[in-house]
Amino acid sequence: MPDVSNMPAMADARDDVAPTGVINCAAYAAGQRVADLPICDIHQALADGDRFVWIGLNEPREEVLREVQREFNLHDLAIEDALSAHQRPKLELYENSLFVVLRTAQLLPGGIGLEFGETHVFVGERYIISVRHGSLKSHVGLRARCEATPHLLSKGSGFVLYALMDFIVDQYLPIVEALEEQLETLEEEIFGERFDRQTTGRIYRLKRDLLSLKRAVSPLVEVCNRLMRFDNKLIPEDTRPYFRDVYDHVVRMNEMIDNLRELLTTALEANLSLISVSHTEHTKRLAAWAAIIAVPTMIAGVYGMNFDTMPELHWKFGYPLSMAIMLGACAGLFIGFRRSGWL
Amino acid sequence: MPDVSNMPAMADARDDVAPTGVINCAAYAAGQRVADLPICDIHQALADGDRFVWIGLNEPREEVLREVQREFNLHDLAIEDALSAHQRPKLELYENSLFVVLRTAQLLPGGIGLEFGETHVFVGERYIISVRHGSLKSHVGLRARCEATPHLLSKGSGFVLYALMDFIVDQYLPIVEALEEQLETLEEEIFGERFDRQTTGRIYRLKRDLLSLKRAVSPLVEVCNRLMRFDNKLIPEDTRPYFRDVYDHVVRMNEMIDNLRELLTTALEANLSLISVSHTEHTKRLAAWAAIIAVPTMIAGVYGMNFDTMPELHWKFGYPLSMAIMLGACAGLFIGFRRSGWL
Amino acid sequence: MPDVSNMPAMADARDDVAPTGVINCAAYAAGQRVADLPICDIHQALADGDRFVWIGLNEPREEVLREVQREFNLHDLAIEDALSAHQRPKLELYENSLFVVLRTAQLLPGGIGLEFGETHVFVGERYIISVRHGSLKSHVGLRARCEATPHLLSKGSGFVLYALMDFIVDQYLPIVEALEEQLETLEEEIFGERFDRQTTGRIYRLKRDLLSLKRAVSPLVEVCNRLMRFDNKLIPEDTRPYFRDVYDHVVRMNEMIDNLRELLTTALEANLSLISVSHTEHTKRLAAWAAIIAVPTMIAGVYGMNFDTMPELHWKFGYPLSMAIMLGACAGLFIGFRRSGWL
Amino acid sequence: MPDVSNMPAMADARDDVAPTGVINCAAYAAGQRVADLPICDIHQALADGDRFVWIGLNEPREEVLREVQREFNLHDLAIEDALSAHQRPKLELYENSLFVVLRTAQLLPGGIGLEFGETHVFVGERYIISVRHGSLKSHVGLRARCEATPHLLSKGSGFVLYALMDFIVDQYLPIVEALEEQLETLEEEIFGERFDRQTTGRIYRLKRDLLSLKRAVSPLVEVCNRLMRFDNKLIPEDTRPYFRDVYDHVVRMNEMIDNLRELLTTALEANLSLISVSHTEHTKRLAAWAAIIAVPTMIAGVYGMNFDTMPELHWKFGYPLSMAIMLGACAGLFIGFRRSGWL
Amino acid sequence: MPDVSNMPAMADARDDVAPTGVINCAAYAAGQRVADLPICDIHQALADGDRFVWIGLNEPREEVLREVQREFNLHDLAIEDALSAHQRPKLELYENSLFVVLRTAQLLPGGIGLEFGETHVFVGERYIISVRHGSLKSHVGLRARCEATPHLLSKGSGFVLYALMDFIVDQYLPIVEALEEQLETLEEEIFGERFDRQTTGRIYRLKRDLLSLKRAVSPLVEVCNRLMRFDNKLIPEDTRPYFRDVYDHVVRMNEMIDNLRELLTTALEANLSLISVSHTEHTKRLAAWAAIIAVPTMIAGVYGMNFDTMPELHWKFGYPLSMAIMLGACAGLFIGFRRSGWL
Repeated sequence: MPDVSNMPAMADARDDVAPTGVINCAAYAAGQRVADLPICDIHQALADGDRFVWIGLNEPREEVLREVQREFNLHDLAIEDALSAHQRPKLELYENSLFVVLRTAQLLPGGIGLEFGETHVFVGERYIISVRHGSLKSHVGLRARCEATPHLLSKGSGFVLYALMDFIVDQYLPIVEALEEQLETLEEEIFGERFDRQTTGRIYRLKRDLLSLKRAVSPLVEVCNRLMRFDNKLIPEDTRPYFRDVYDHVVRMNEMIDNLRELLTTALEANLSLISVSHTEHTKRLAAWAAIIAVPTMIAGVYGMNFDTMPELHWKFGYPLSMAIMLGACAGLFIGFRRSGWL
Repeated sequence: MPDVSNMPAMADARDDVAPTGVINCAAYAAGQRVADLPICDIHQALADGDRFVWIGLNEPREEVLREVQREFNLHDLAIEDALSAHQRPKLELYENSLFVVLRTAQLLPGGIGLEFGETHVFVGERYIISVRHGSLKSHVGLRARCEATPHLLSKGSGFVLYALMDFIVDQYLPIVEALEEQLETLEEEIFGERFDRQTTGRIYRLKRDLLSLKRAVSPLVEVCNRLMRFDNKLIPEDTRPYFRDVYDHVVRMNEMIDNLRELLTTALEANLSLISVSHTEHTKRLAAWAAIIAVPTMIAGVYGMNFDTMPELHWKFGYPLSMAIMLGACAGLFIGFRRSGWL
Repeated sequence: MPDVSNMPAMADARDDVAPTGVINCAAYAAGQRVADLPICDIHQALADGDRFVWIGLNEPREEVLREVQREFNLHDLAIEDALSAHQRPKLELYENSLFVVLRTAQLLPGGIGLEFGETHVFVGERYIISVRHGSLKSHVGLRARCEATPHLLSKGSGFVLYALMDFIVDQYLPIVEALEEQLETLEEEIFGERFDRQTTGRIYRLKRDLLSLKRAVSPLVEVCNRLMRFDNKLIPEDTRPYFRDVYDHVVRMNEMIDNLRELLTTALEANLSLISVSHTEHTKRLAAWAAIIAVPTMIAGVYGMNFDTMPELHWKFGYPLSMAIMLGACAGLFIGFRRSGWL
Repeated sequence: MPDVSNMPAMADARDDVAPTGVINCAAYAAGQRVADLPICDIHQALADGDRFVWIGLNEPREEVLREVQREFNLHDLAIEDALSAHQRPKLELYENSLFVVLRTAQLLPGGIGLEFGETHVFVGERYIISVRHGSLKSHVGLRARCEATPHLLSKGSGFVLYALMDFIVDQYLPIVEALEEQLETLEEEIFGERFDRQTTGRIYRLKRDLLSLKRAVSPLVEVCNRLMRFDNKLIPEDTRPYFRDVYDHVVRMNEMIDNLRELLTTALEANLSLISVSHTEHTKRLAAWAAIIAVPTMIAGVYGMNFDTMPELHWKFGYPLSMAIMLGACAGLFIGFRRSGWL
Repeated sequence: MPDVSNMPAMADARDDVAPTGVINCAAYAAGQRVADLPICDIHQALADGDRFVWIGLNEPREEVLREVQREFNLHDLAIEDALSAHQRPKLELYENSLFVVLRTAQLLPGGIGLEFGETHVFVGERYIISVRHGSLKSHVGLRARCEATPHLLSKGSGFVLYALMDFIVDQYLPIVEALEEQLETLEEEIFGERFDRQTTGRIYRLKRDLLSLKRAVSPLVEVCNRLMRFDNKLIPEDTRPYFRDVYDHVVRMNEMIDNLRELLTTALEANLSLISVSHTEHTKRLAAWAAIIAVPTMIAGVYGMNFDTMPELHWKFGYPLSMAIMLGACAGLFIGFRRSGWL
């Protein structure tokens, strides 16, 4: 979305959700919004040949969706997908329309864990209908951005599809970056001084989030690939390079995710190695202290023997001497262990 | 199966299995059941050009299957497959008929472990024959559902094939979800306080179940793919989008299974890490207690020595003092170990 | 091999190996054996246009093979392959003949370890020549079975190729099943009470056997695939579905092997986890017993001190009391460790 | 870059960066630099049909890039890519121009860690424009080298693209070799006497660097592949073998990186094995010393008993004898442990 | 190389390397060597239409290679590849010639470690030029073998290319077999009684050698595949089956290498398991001996207490009895540990 992507997100005042689920329904001509309509008037609005309609629905009631279906003659199976959600991202070509399923993603507050929504898009030559499930946030500002570049919007419904996909795909990037940061934090934990049983759990949860995100992103590679090669008047030739742009982003994101996955696998193995190293270190320390205590115990045992003739027992400084020997042995061992890195 | 899939499963009273293995054999015209027939009358019934026959067999005797073979001129090899079962899911195209092998799956009672059955389907322009092996349960309600939507059933045998595949594929979803739940339980075991040698065994069994399920599901991707692209009058053009729907479900299920597999592999590794961590913790605790006991033993050893001149032995409060020192050392060590997390 | 595969293996009296390596050489017409010939008379026998010759050789002398080569004008490179063996399964198309290499497999007596042989097949329109290396057993009964179904045998040399491949591929199944049983035994060892260093060795050997078997089976997927799509009069159109049947078996076997491999990898990892768990358990038991012995030792040390005033030493029941304390401490520790699962 | 690649890098005096980001802008005819121009004069310069323009930009201001865009009619999306950087290597074909994104790589000073830059190239029949981001160093000497071989430079802008790609790809080789050396150092650490927790960290960091480098190199395989097969007048037929040359280098580098990755994975596992081995060794040593100290402690305990009749206590040489026994036991144990490799 | 491959390697007296790097330069007609020439006379020699020239170079001086280049009009890029070596195996098709890069491999003396060389081959209709880098040994006997089968040599330069590739590929087999033997030795080390830290190092080095060999072998699959399908008069149709033969060898070798790699990975994991098992065993033994020493120490401690009334101390046989108890306890423990496998 060239000129548009650097614009500040406008307050999208019109995006209040009606109880029926209709957020917005407007006709556009030459890139300008020419009318806001109720759904029942669409037919009339399209009588004028140059126009197209852009409808935004949010978890609509079934009867609304059915009305839309009748209006645009949409396929039963696509409507049912849009009703039930829980689809994987895909592109389906019906006779005279496209049906695209996208997944929106949001970081949960606190930055740990992901939340997914779905957006289903019907694209015809003269209409584009988006049906959102899950977080509304994922669409705020999109319509305003598009309306700000009438010369692009005038390319028609195919361009709106691009704008929508670009908008959603752009939202993956901060998530991938947040997951990269989580990995960096984990690296510090693992290779720094402090790792504990939580670290392993966090590695696992990061892996799980990555896999979920991958399931949202990777089917888009194929979707974009088909869109940018499409020989279909729904996507005019001069719009196709824009889909190549989305394709590039998706491929790059996909690559970043795979990268993270491989690093994570290595991190998990490195973690196991370091747990073993640290276990060895603890064992050494244990052994060292055991030796330091065992030696004076042994010496004390010797002088606790009851032999009749043990001359040392009768020396004047026998006791302090024995204590000195004990302390000396301990000190010697302590220094020795220190030097060899056991303590 | 659009309109039909939300219907409550009707009591399928007619689905009693005859000892020969014939469950049902009916002729349909314009989406309505027009006659229940014995197999030998099929020929006659098909004289009327608009009709098709839908036969349901359950582990039929060989002579029944041979009779059906003669009636519809089915290929020898397909009949033998249908007799022996133990096939992998596949689609075979004979001159004028399709032969489809599907695997049905059921969770064993108690929710642990899977049970597989097989359904073989012969589809011709004017007939569809399903041969079931294993659990009957996997087909209950299907015929009733189809008959409830005559406008779809009137599309002919190709639609019945879709309905049957959709029906079977829909049964995988609760299984995949049950396996996902099993993984969640395992996660809690692994990352929570309590894991033991059973955990590893459960991870392994879940992996084994996943692999079995994958073997049932993944060949269907190719089967559906071919059905939805088929240039063949057995699958009329307006039925193909329905197979795309099944395809989507299968791909999604396949993806969920792969996801589970990868998470499970990570879980197994995480489990190993945590076993090591917990081993280190036990070693530390052992070391701490060993030190706490060893120190007073050493001190006692010292005052058990038999030197002539050990002034402390003659102090009035020598004994209580020594006991106090011992207890003090133990307490000091205990507190120290507590603080550094060894105890 | 439809009608034939359920027949009991006949005593194949004619299959005595001549010292030259010729087992059998017979001409067939309309599915019936019409003549047993020496190799030098083949030319004559084929003068009658309807016939084909089926020659069975077992590790033949080079001169025999060279004679056959001259008779049927076989390619030098194929003959050399057939002489040297040690080929991987493959299919080669020469101008007017096929050359197929297959690997036969047998479980070694005792059910542990595999033994491989090779069978090389030359197929022309009017002849089929099999050259066996390794175990003879792998072919016993094949010819009798084919001759029992003249209506199929009359399809010519292409059908004999199918029968031979089917025969060999069917021999893999009991092997794969035996390996599956070995895995089950290993699972019991691993997850049951008793595993030792032998278990790891057995896992490794099973993996090695699986890989060997995979090398015999997996190239057949491609071989069968090409045979069932072949546009070549050597494989008549009505024989191709038979190769699809072999293809199905091979793909299924391949899948079973891959399944086993993945389970085995998981089993090896699970084994490592359980070794660690069991190590931790031993460490805990060791620690518990060490504590149980260390506590009375410490107490005894205390009462071995030589302080002048240790009132307990002079108590009447000092000694039994101290013993009671020691035993009590041991019992308390024992019970405590039992409860917390360390003993 | 045949004749050119062995030349010493000339001091590229003209490569001073103007504040606008324009490094160089020159027209070439018949392989000779014929004029240095400001960007606004390009149009004029190209009036003469034989010429092409080579512009070098370094992190240019947006207005400069926009001027260039207007001059050569470049596509909006490509310009935006060139402005924002953060692209993955790719090749895009617009109507009459190519857009190539490359990543430059440099070893950080000290040889540990990598730094990446980006170079974006626009190629038309009569122009080539390179836009650099990140390290300038990656281009020093390129223009001089090209100008030194006028017979090759006369092939036009397609050849300059080759020269540029070859130049950048050649810079990967020393990096891959440096990473190979790092692996060798790690191998010495792992399999030599000394490895510690740093080793695991270094393995991880090497893996991370490899993955980053792979992301720069591997997309080039596809880019070069397309360039060497291109049926487009921008890349004349006699220039294509040169791209095959770059392709070979890229494939080889890719292979070296994959090789390193697999070795690194094995190294990490070997490291874990050796940590375990070394842990076992430490445990054995600990056990040995524990035994050596425990035995005399036990003997001393025995002669510390207070039985009335312990004849040894009254022997003249009882004490030295007991000491000798203790020492003997210690020495015997020491020698025994030494022999069996525990010490 | 059919008739030739079993011949004893002749002493190749003519293969002395001239200081210029020319080993041999001969013209052949109808499979017979008709003339030995200096390079400058080649042109003349080829005037006679039936002849082809076979030149063998060994690390030639640049001027020799440039002379050859002029003589046969070879492409600049190929010549540079041949000068610099360090190429990966590949096949390049220039207008009227082929350029093939092969890697030769030798086991280092002692059988551990590999040494690689390179052979570059230029093939034209009337010439074949081989340029060797690294070990000369890899070519000894080839020319003699070819000359011994004039009927094959008369097929021209394409056949010589086959002979050369076959010769080089045949040298891989003993290497792969040597690596297989190394794995067997490692298996014995791992699963037999004795493994130590060297074992892990040897596994790693074997993996590294396998990866190097794989890099030499695996690109040949594609090279041979293209040669055997080539529609080019340089490789006449009746020579192509020979390349299929090389292809088979290469594929089989590749498969053996992959097999070894997978086994090696399993071996490394099995090694880790067995290290852990052996660690557990050592821990158990340590624990057993600790218990055996601790029990008499405890008993001795008890009888070292100074209570006034300890009747046992005054028993006549108190001391020997206590000793008997100690020994009995030790013996009992020893037997118990033996039985349960701890000792």
